Amino acid sequence: MRDFPDPIKRLIEELGRLPGVGPKTAERYAFALLKRRGEDRERLADAILDIGGSLSTCSVCGNYTEENPCPICSDSRRDRTFVCVVATEQDLLAIERTGEFSGLYHVLGGVLSPADGITPNELNVRELLARVSRETPTELVMAFDHTIEGESTMMYLTRLLRPSGIRVTRLARGLPTGSEVGYADEVTLSDALRGRREVIREHESSTA
Amino acid sequence: MRDFPDPIKRLIEELGRLPGVGPKTAERYAFALLKRRGEDRERLADAILDIGGSLSTCSVCGNYTEENPCPICSDSRRDRTFVCVVATEQDLLAIERTGEFSGLYHVLGGVLSPADGITPNELNVRELLARVSRETPTELVMAFDHTIEGESTMMYLTRLLRPSGIRVTRLARGLPTGSEVGYADEVTLSDALRGRREVIREHESSTA
Repeated sequence: MRDFPDPIKRLIEELGRLPGVGPKTAERYAFALLKRRGEDRERLADAILDIGGSLSTCSVCGNYTEENPCPICSDSRRDRTFVCVVATEQDLLAIERTGEFSGLYHVLGGVLSPADGITPNELNVRELLARVSRETPTELVMAFDHTIEGESTMMYLTRLLRPSGIRVTRLARGLPTGSEVGYADEVTLSDALRGRREVIREHESSTA
Repeated sequence: MRDFPDPIKRLIEELGRLPGVGPKTAERYAFALLKRRGEDRERLADAILDIGGSLSTCSVCGNYTEENPCPICSDSRRDRTFVCVVATEQDLLAIERTGEFSGLYHVLGGVLSPADGITPNELNVRELLARVSRETPTELVMAFDHTIEGESTMMYLTRLLRPSGIRVTRLARGLPTGSEVGYADEVTLSDALRGRREVIREHESSTA
């Protein structure tokens, strides 16, 4: 025997298709699953199969949902004039969790990355433009990663939206919580300098 | 909405039970699975369920197998007088892959770790003793991790086996392939010094 029994091999192979999972990690997961009770394995298998069933994407914002439109889009208390454009559903949830945003979202489905074959056609760009001309929000905030792909996606959308006259903003850049000036990289520090705010005004607005 | 739809939440939770998988990694896996085609997800779910079916443990060595005894134990070309004691099935396979070992194995099912409640009773220790007195091999090689747990398991078994008069050996310790003397830690270097071999004899035996 120079290899695991077939069922284990097959499981390792399938687990190895998860993002960032190499053969050794897949092996580790497989053996952990082997040592579990049958019910525990069934619960995982069921959970994997279930997402194929009741989930679809919201026809308005593109987020995963069990109802259409999704609970956010159909929430009448939310500010319908303010739309946050995010790359992924995970980014949407990260913003939701801050509790700071009461507008709606638009999930682009990724960022532009010509090297990986991701052009505007692969993303919900057309849907965004149609939505903007249909719903006429007053502000779009671009909430993309502070990376080359995130930046270019933001610039691309901003240019595309310019004719609409809509206000396009982006997330602030600067020092993250808990970071130390002496250890911050130059780009972050430059961003923080350029984006500096008056201390008094800031305090007044946060206590207002 | 402050959280993912239920099916996604449940999948993230189940994936988070895999060893070393935190909430962020589980989220990443879940979204990768969401983006896959239904067939791909079914293949993974099937693979997870399958290991519950046809797999059992070999009644001789304790390795996972589809037949009993396992293909190694029932291979008549293997040296039945030489048994390698390993902690896990993964360790067994790592040794098999070297192609250097033609004896049989004994899978202990872990190493002693009183802090985690792993005592000899949780391991296939009784089975090993019974096997040794039944099959009377001439040598047992202990192939445990070079860690405190691995060492104490090895010492425990060695003492236990002493009355049998059987030859108990362990894997060599020293510099791993590709390592540099200047960067090796002191324990490894001390091991390498203590375990030094004559160059000429070594070359002769490897060309013999």
